[in-house]
Amino acid sequence: MTQTTEVIIATAHDGGREAQPDHLAVEEPLEIRLGYRGTDGWRTQSVSITMRTPGHDADLAAGFLFAEGIVRAPSQIAQITVGGAARNVLRVDLHPDARVDLKRMERHFYTSSSCGVCGKTSLDALSTAGCSPLPDSGARFQADMIHQLPALLRQSQPAFERTGGLHAAALFDRDGRLLSLREDVGRHNAVDKVIGAEFLAGRVPLSERLMVVSGRAGFELMQKALVAGIPVLAAVGAPSSLAVELGQEFDITLIGFLKAERLNIYSAAWRIT
Amino acid sequence: MTQTTEVIIATAHDGGREAQPDHLAVEEPLEIRLGYRGTDGWRTQSVSITMRTPGHDADLAAGFLFAEGIVRAPSQIAQITVGGAARNVLRVDLHPDARVDLKRMERHFYTSSSCGVCGKTSLDALSTAGCSPLPDSGARFQADMIHQLPALLRQSQPAFERTGGLHAAALFDRDGRLLSLREDVGRHNAVDKVIGAEFLAGRVPLSERLMVVSGRAGFELMQKALVAGIPVLAAVGAPSSLAVELGQEFDITLIGFLKAERLNIYSAAWRIT
Repeated sequence: MTQTTEVIIATAHDGGREAQPDHLAVEEPLEIRLGYRGTDGWRTQSVSITMRTPGHDADLAAGFLFAEGIVRAPSQIAQITVGGAARNVLRVDLHPDARVDLKRMERHFYTSSSCGVCGKTSLDALSTAGCSPLPDSGARFQADMIHQLPALLRQSQPAFERTGGLHAAALFDRDGRLLSLREDVGRHNAVDKVIGAEFLAGRVPLSERLMVVSGRAGFELMQKALVAGIPVLAAVGAPSSLAVELGQEFDITLIGFLKAERLNIYSAAWRIT
Repeated sequence: MTQTTEVIIATAHDGGREAQPDHLAVEEPLEIRLGYRGTDGWRTQSVSITMRTPGHDADLAAGFLFAEGIVRAPSQIAQITVGGAARNVLRVDLHPDARVDLKRMERHFYTSSSCGVCGKTSLDALSTAGCSPLPDSGARFQADMIHQLPALLRQSQPAFERTGGLHAAALFDRDGRLLSLREDVGRHNAVDKVIGAEFLAGRVPLSERLMVVSGRAGFELMQKALVAGIPVLAAVGAPSSLAVELGQEFDITLIGFLKAERLNIYSAAWRIT
């Protein structure tokens, strides 16, 4: 579960060079295997290999399966086995009654659809998957509070401070209290770990929460927020065009370039007071 | 081929709020289909869907297939068809004599290997795939020259200047001349576009070149540099542990935290003078 490791490197500056220790963010592959009851008995299938920073792997797996629509309730998961015979392999066994949408699993890794793919299709696919615009839970978030979150995030990132090489995702309540923070070399993994822990604890949908991510916001991060019912996603970096379209179409508030003195609101601005 | 798009957003600062135009990096999915001669006739298979910034899609597809080891020489590609009946779908037809390693394709998306997965296994997999340490081409690179590259990179990133939301990958020669630069919402795509263009032009291996990437350096970027024979990868951000291990094991010079006044060398430091 080491998040950082130390190496000796050469540093070049002002024409000189010196050896010195440096901390690195650990990156290792994780294979997620799914055990489930198929029509012809119990089956095991590898569903993902992701490059991630070790730690909170069960949350990562649960968050991934939830975001992909493979599981919809924690009761569908019978057991998560971390570290068995093989290192960096994790196994999620579903409840025997859980029905698995294999087609959905394939969608993520591989597709042979004959229809065209475009941004609009990506958005349509979410609708088809049963995603509808987020209902208004009544939750509002103060801009003054949101401006303070990047500083809170940075203070709470011990591994980033050492390595400079980790993305962070954090969940806050409406009063700006930090509820959970995960760091990972992959930004999607950090988000999956945060959401996965909430999912396993039965706290989804997260309709009173705000999520902050340290980097940029693309389509996939917004998709995860949508599935988890998070009404506000705030990115320290820039959003992409498709992230903004998703926010507009599904009523998720998307904030970008979040700083202490400034922020941009790209969609559903009515949640920010 | 639009790399940026304009939207009207709400900007909050100093307690006030105003509407203003903002530029976004365009993100759209691209499906890559592969046409090849199988044992039972001509086959078409979808091999990847990636979220990318439109533009240089043929380079992206070629770079992706090359990095994955699916093609090894430009002569194996008979034709690349961009934008046919379906938008955001690209088709690569291989030469009838080209042999396709389907197993290698599957590795990328899906695996059912019974062996464990770990960092060491990832490195071993590269050896198994025929990758050996980079031979010393004799090319050396001056630290003084490398310090100047981030400024050159930034000057040449028009879309980033507008959006703040694009990664860049750029190829330089030993004298620090910029040979090619691509911007993309996905850092892997930017690298695939740069390498893919060189591959299609028959200029691989790139044994006299240095590549700079705007963000962090992980395992997959180093893998692409290895396959393309690029001896020096310099990242403006932090490297991961597995990227450093790959650099050490395969003699690729990995530079991180590249700045005008400072840089860190994580592997094969002997190439930097």
